[in-house]
Amino acid sequence: MTTPDLPSLAEVLPAGVLTTEPATLEGYRFDWSHDETAGTPLAVVRAESAEQVQAAVRWAAAHRVPVVPRGAGSGLSGGASAVDGGIVVSLERMRAIEIDAASGVAVVEPGALNAAVKQAAAAEGLWYPPDPASYEMCSIGGNIATNAGGLCCVKYGVTADYVLGLDVVLADGTLVTLGGKRVKDVAGLPLLKLYVGSEGTLGIVTRAVLRLVPSQGPLATMVATFASMTEAARAVVEIRRRMRPSMLELMDTATINAVEDLKPRGLDREAGAFLIAQSDAPGDARGLEIEAMGEVCEASGAAEVLATTDPEESEMFVDARRAAFTALETKGSALLEDVGVPVPLLPELVGGVARIAAERETTIAVVAHAGDGNSHPFIVFDANDPDAVARSRRAFEDVMALAISLGGTITGEHGVGRAKRDALPAQLGEDVMALNLTVKRALDPAGILNPGALL
Amino acid sequence: MTTPDLPSLAEVLPAGVLTTEPATLEGYRFDWSHDETAGTPLAVVRAESAEQVQAAVRWAAAHRVPVVPRGAGSGLSGGASAVDGGIVVSLERMRAIEIDAASGVAVVEPGALNAAVKQAAAAEGLWYPPDPASYEMCSIGGNIATNAGGLCCVKYGVTADYVLGLDVVLADGTLVTLGGKRVKDVAGLPLLKLYVGSEGTLGIVTRAVLRLVPSQGPLATMVATFASMTEAARAVVEIRRRMRPSMLELMDTATINAVEDLKPRGLDREAGAFLIAQSDAPGDARGLEIEAMGEVCEASGAAEVLATTDPEESEMFVDARRAAFTALETKGSALLEDVGVPVPLLPELVGGVARIAAERETTIAVVAHAGDGNSHPFIVFDANDPDAVARSRRAFEDVMALAISLGGTITGEHGVGRAKRDALPAQLGEDVMALNLTVKRALDPAGILNPGALL
Repeated sequence: MTTPDLPSLAEVLPAGVLTTEPATLEGYRFDWSHDETAGTPLAVVRAESAEQVQAAVRWAAAHRVPVVPRGAGSGLSGGASAVDGGIVVSLERMRAIEIDAASGVAVVEPGALNAAVKQAAAAEGLWYPPDPASYEMCSIGGNIATNAGGLCCVKYGVTADYVLGLDVVLADGTLVTLGGKRVKDVAGLPLLKLYVGSEGTLGIVTRAVLRLVPSQGPLATMVATFASMTEAARAVVEIRRRMRPSMLELMDTATINAVEDLKPRGLDREAGAFLIAQSDAPGDARGLEIEAMGEVCEASGAAEVLATTDPEESEMFVDARRAAFTALETKGSALLEDVGVPVPLLPELVGGVARIAAERETTIAVVAHAGDGNSHPFIVFDANDPDAVARSRRAFEDVMALAISLGGTITGEHGVGRAKRDALPAQLGEDVMALNLTVKRALDPAGILNPGALL
Repeated sequence: MTTPDLPSLAEVLPAGVLTTEPATLEGYRFDWSHDETAGTPLAVVRAESAEQVQAAVRWAAAHRVPVVPRGAGSGLSGGASAVDGGIVVSLERMRAIEIDAASGVAVVEPGALNAAVKQAAAAEGLWYPPDPASYEMCSIGGNIATNAGGLCCVKYGVTADYVLGLDVVLADGTLVTLGGKRVKDVAGLPLLKLYVGSEGTLGIVTRAVLRLVPSQGPLATMVATFASMTEAARAVVEIRRRMRPSMLELMDTATINAVEDLKPRGLDREAGAFLIAQSDAPGDARGLEIEAMGEVCEASGAAEVLATTDPEESEMFVDARRAAFTALETKGSALLEDVGVPVPLLPELVGGVARIAAERETTIAVVAHAGDGNSHPFIVFDANDPDAVARSRRAFEDVMALAISLGGTITGEHGVGRAKRDALPAQLGEDVMALNLTVKRALDPAGILNPGALL
């Protein structure tokens, strides 16, 4: 690669948007996965408009310079790792949110935080359901790039289910509008959804129209402890088959203890598994649903079952679940998995993960969006011990191979990014990999959009 | 085109699967849109397995012969019109349905009828929500091809929201599996959803994994009459903003009268509009929701409001709505629209349609999935009067132009097919049309898959 002509980029972008200052560049190298292969960008473009994104991409296309789009940088798979010799296009300054309550939509810029969209919707009696555990700091653009999930997916689905429209800057700098405020639209190929979960490899989202629903009503909460994850997972399968919980989350004993270490909440440190379920059914159905879930847990051998409608107590339990990653991160270096399996295979998955931990002599804590069969085994290791690092790395691969062998996926909601790219062919197989490459080459022939991520 | 080598196709397909008998071919020329441009196929392949679909497509690819995939033939946009010199690949014999209740999915072949999937799911206490009005005769393959909607979409979404996995035969005959029984999966580009709504132009679906949910509970129903469609549409906007009806459908006076003519049900023939809403909220919330909807209707000037929890009475009203197309078809030849607008613009849409009907001196009845802003203006005319035909044709185009001018779509759920292909560029614009063609060319370089449909 020849050194690209940065001054010509400065000519088309206002001062303050383009940065080449080394200390600033350093801050745009990594996302939360702390990808050690991350490069150093030539420049960062902190775009303030779709036109500026277009200008940056047009320049990159002309000079064949890699472009890494970046939201809040809270990704967990290295999808926003910078590339040597490339530019980072950060959307963090594009945060406008407009609620159209009559249409039941939010029109948002990609840098808007998930929590800010929820808050703006709530002011109009509306709700944007997708809720990654990081919802207070992750951006909508990143949520769209990864098709992010969260805790409410078990009843309310994932980000893709809420995207009605997108403005996307394509690989040649063209800005297209796909979809819009209409709820149903089948005109043309369904390209809109092709951009939700494409991890910035096909285009850069500069605006999104998001479907909102009426505000969620009051919640009832049930928590249950079990001697083992396998027992708890069996209760999950049964609950999900018969009921529609609005949350169904599972933590193992290592996670319970990490969460208690971080901030004591009175969780049972002796329990093998901690299950938290919520119902947002309206009226008297809520209490009945929570009661029925408790009965399933008892029949599945739960040691203790507690139901509550007290908002503070409920929030304390949910907060414990949301604190899981932060709590586990204090225990050492980490490799975070995001595997998913068909729900009835969740007991096999958690059992298999325990076997892998034993075989590889490494600690693997497990947190799961259990109702979706989506699990986050969290491999904790000492980064100063090369052997431990190697064993953890092997365990990381073993867990993905296990998920694939169970008819599952290497990533349910975090994305492939750079962290799981090497494992992707084993899941997809040769023909589907070829299909991925065909679409990628058609839409980004020069391969400048987030190269190295996903494919 | 040289005459393709049909005997070589007969060599790779079992006897009884390949037909060239003229009387049989005639039966595979049209779908319900009775597209007058439909051609006559060289042959029909009534495939009994994915391997046979592959064999047919490989042969077609080798000989550059157009392939029109066909489900139940109940499409309303000419998406399955046969092409002169092409073959029709009918999936009607591939009807297997397997319910995996623990996973909460149905694994189905494309020829399975929507109603059969619902029935098989119900036997396990589960529910497949998408419900086109034609659900008793339309196939899942066709539902996937058009991303079909229906009456429950207002709360439960469209076909795409329920497709977890697909087996697809690509343009070169390769069979790929996308997705599977896992609920969440973001591994690789989101290609799965690219095939839902692509109208057979990118591949042929041979198997689908469909998400099921627990059976729908009891329903409460509200019906209301209004002096005008505009008043009724205003009530719809308000109901949808605050509540989650499981059905919210609207018929105008021409439709009410056609339905009554077909089979008297005691609907008010004098009413300007008839609104039917349902709630499937659990427990006591159901009655409260229906009551609140009634209050909105009254506040919006409803002439009469009736609420019922009686299943038979409810079913009678829903059945009246489902009978609308059949009833209107008895009134003359028809052009059926499928326009959609952002919900708050529904009053403008129905008002505009009435203006177009007056201007073009043609009858336009209106039936609407009102809660989604998706409306089916139904243009009725005398096919023996050339001037009436011409005026109807112009009205058909005017209604699509109106929808586009309101930020809407020319098709919310029926698909573009051949009937609306000429109107597509006006909605999508040059750049999005180019993007559609880029994807089409990448995935079907020889252009053999359903040529003339959609693009």
